[in-house]
Amino acid sequence: MAQDIILFGLGAMGQRMARLAVARGYRICAAIDPDPAKAGQPLGRVAGLEDGTAGPLVSADAGAALAQTPRATVLHATGSFLRDVAAQIELCLGHGHDVISIAEEMTLPAAADPAIAARLDAIARQHGTRVMGTGVNPGFAMDVLALALTVPMERVDHLHLRRVNDLSDFGPTVLRGQGVGLSPEAFEDGLRTGRVVGHVGFAQSIALIARHLCWTVERIEETRAPIVSGVARETPHMQIAPGQVAGCLHSATAYRDGREVMRLEHPQQIRPEAEGQRTSDTLRIRGDQVIEMTTAPEIPGGAGTAAAAVNAVAHLSRAQPGLVHLTDLPLTVPQA
Amino acid sequence: MAQDIILFGLGAMGQRMARLAVARGYRICAAIDPDPAKAGQPLGRVAGLEDGTAGPLVSADAGAALAQTPRATVLHATGSFLRDVAAQIELCLGHGHDVISIAEEMTLPAAADPAIAARLDAIARQHGTRVMGTGVNPGFAMDVLALALTVPMERVDHLHLRRVNDLSDFGPTVLRGQGVGLSPEAFEDGLRTGRVVGHVGFAQSIALIARHLCWTVERIEETRAPIVSGVARETPHMQIAPGQVAGCLHSATAYRDGREVMRLEHPQQIRPEAEGQRTSDTLRIRGDQVIEMTTAPEIPGGAGTAAAAVNAVAHLSRAQPGLVHLTDLPLTVPQA
Repeated sequence: MAQDIILFGLGAMGQRMARLAVARGYRICAAIDPDPAKAGQPLGRVAGLEDGTAGPLVSADAGAALAQTPRATVLHATGSFLRDVAAQIELCLGHGHDVISIAEEMTLPAAADPAIAARLDAIARQHGTRVMGTGVNPGFAMDVLALALTVPMERVDHLHLRRVNDLSDFGPTVLRGQGVGLSPEAFEDGLRTGRVVGHVGFAQSIALIARHLCWTVERIEETRAPIVSGVARETPHMQIAPGQVAGCLHSATAYRDGREVMRLEHPQQIRPEAEGQRTSDTLRIRGDQVIEMTTAPEIPGGAGTAAAAVNAVAHLSRAQPGLVHLTDLPLTVPQA
Repeated sequence: MAQDIILFGLGAMGQRMARLAVARGYRICAAIDPDPAKAGQPLGRVAGLEDGTAGPLVSADAGAALAQTPRATVLHATGSFLRDVAAQIELCLGHGHDVISIAEEMTLPAAADPAIAARLDAIARQHGTRVMGTGVNPGFAMDVLALALTVPMERVDHLHLRRVNDLSDFGPTVLRGQGVGLSPEAFEDGLRTGRVVGHVGFAQSIALIARHLCWTVERIEETRAPIVSGVARETPHMQIAPGQVAGCLHSATAYRDGREVMRLEHPQQIRPEAEGQRTSDTLRIRGDQVIEMTTAPEIPGGAGTAAAAVNAVAHLSRAQPGLVHLTDLPLTVPQA
């Protein structure tokens, strides 16, 4: 049962998960994507498997594909926001499948919409299925890894989590959401209109940490500022001139009992090395001790998220039915 | 139930755990130590609690203390080796108490003696109780933290784990086991006679990692070498001259399918800074990605082990009865 997989969403991340699931020896029972360029094609061709003819055929009809497949684990990668993915996930759960989603807001859906989270939990319990979200950020670099570092601490007073990453491999959709290529004025305008989004997931990381430490966070403040480049920068998808925006410095601060208890900083940009910035994850946790950890370069977001999802398959199958959070499980690591 | 604590062993570590458990608001129901200087004294005086008269009185009779106390969680700190602590732990389990032990070999007792581990598991199940081991090393710095870093990895090929720590705060018992103060010749002699032990726990760290990654490790090689000081070094407990041993570089290498898959290096010495050595934990994990993490100074062994044990209390109470391993649980972090 845990060995049977359905792929729901075959963008870059879904394709990555498909390749990894096949490499692990999991059986792919169904593959779902509404894109007419993919539907009807063999998964092997769409996902770049070694065997380009390997099945199943990609289906555009999620309901039919889910109904025809015996109990499996769905690897879900169609969007970031709970409101966009909830109906798809409910459909999977209702057909008796477990779901692992890489939608950012699914790492702690109640932080996005408590009513939808409660509904997912109820549907999963009703059908004896499990649903969880995972990924590198949210899900690992700014939450589970931070919690891991608190295992030997008597008391945690403050977490300062900083992730400096490189967007150079990403395409136009991601870059647009970070305001890359805009003038500083257009960036500010994009923030007002919602076209510039910054990072999706601070609310989830903060809530995952708070939930596991039994903290009540009363307030989160977020700021988004343009990273204005002093030099020309170029990627396969984007060229920017000096004075244009290379990315977004998105920060969040969380308060408990009137005091700041978490600060999350996430500058995302193309070619950070062009101005001497090294990518890294730096976690500094202050309490009875100060534990400071650095990993450079940063934990890779794309490969890491696909791996985190596929790594969770075996672990999730041992959990109780319902909405499961990453922090409810033992560490979800690759299994031989 | 989870809030009720029994302290078993009131050496430096047991006293630390007592103070932390009281600070957390846990109720201390009993305290056990055979030392005639402690038995009969109030726990407050023995453990240096703020209230030196705070009870209970320390009991030298473990059986009586365990029998008279309703179901509680025992924080156990009396020794390192399974053969020395198994009978004490069985006594606790048999009286209906959960046990969290900081005995190094208890983090994965089957690596020390599979028969004793199976017996602990059977006794715990029979009485509906739970038993686990934890600590900074083994338990965290060279195992759980390493596993945490594999969450976003597709594949793990090799783990290189290096912990450089400072023994300057430790007393004569610990220093003797590392050969501190000996001549290099006496160190080699101590290895042969078993007086110089090095680190206790490599077998457990390796087995915890292998178990969670579903690896079969076929062979472990260990080496112990003297760290000969080039300069004079001094601690409150020890003075050494140039040419004498400042500590022990203990290493272990684990093999799977004929290939090296783990290398653990643990130089332990007094005053490492005397010859420019910075203390640190460095974890380098190689697979589809290379993830390298450094924290400097090292995760503190004493405070960290006491915290890891007390942090596990609430988490263990939610586990199934039997022998529980750290890696079976969600991350055992401090709870508000």
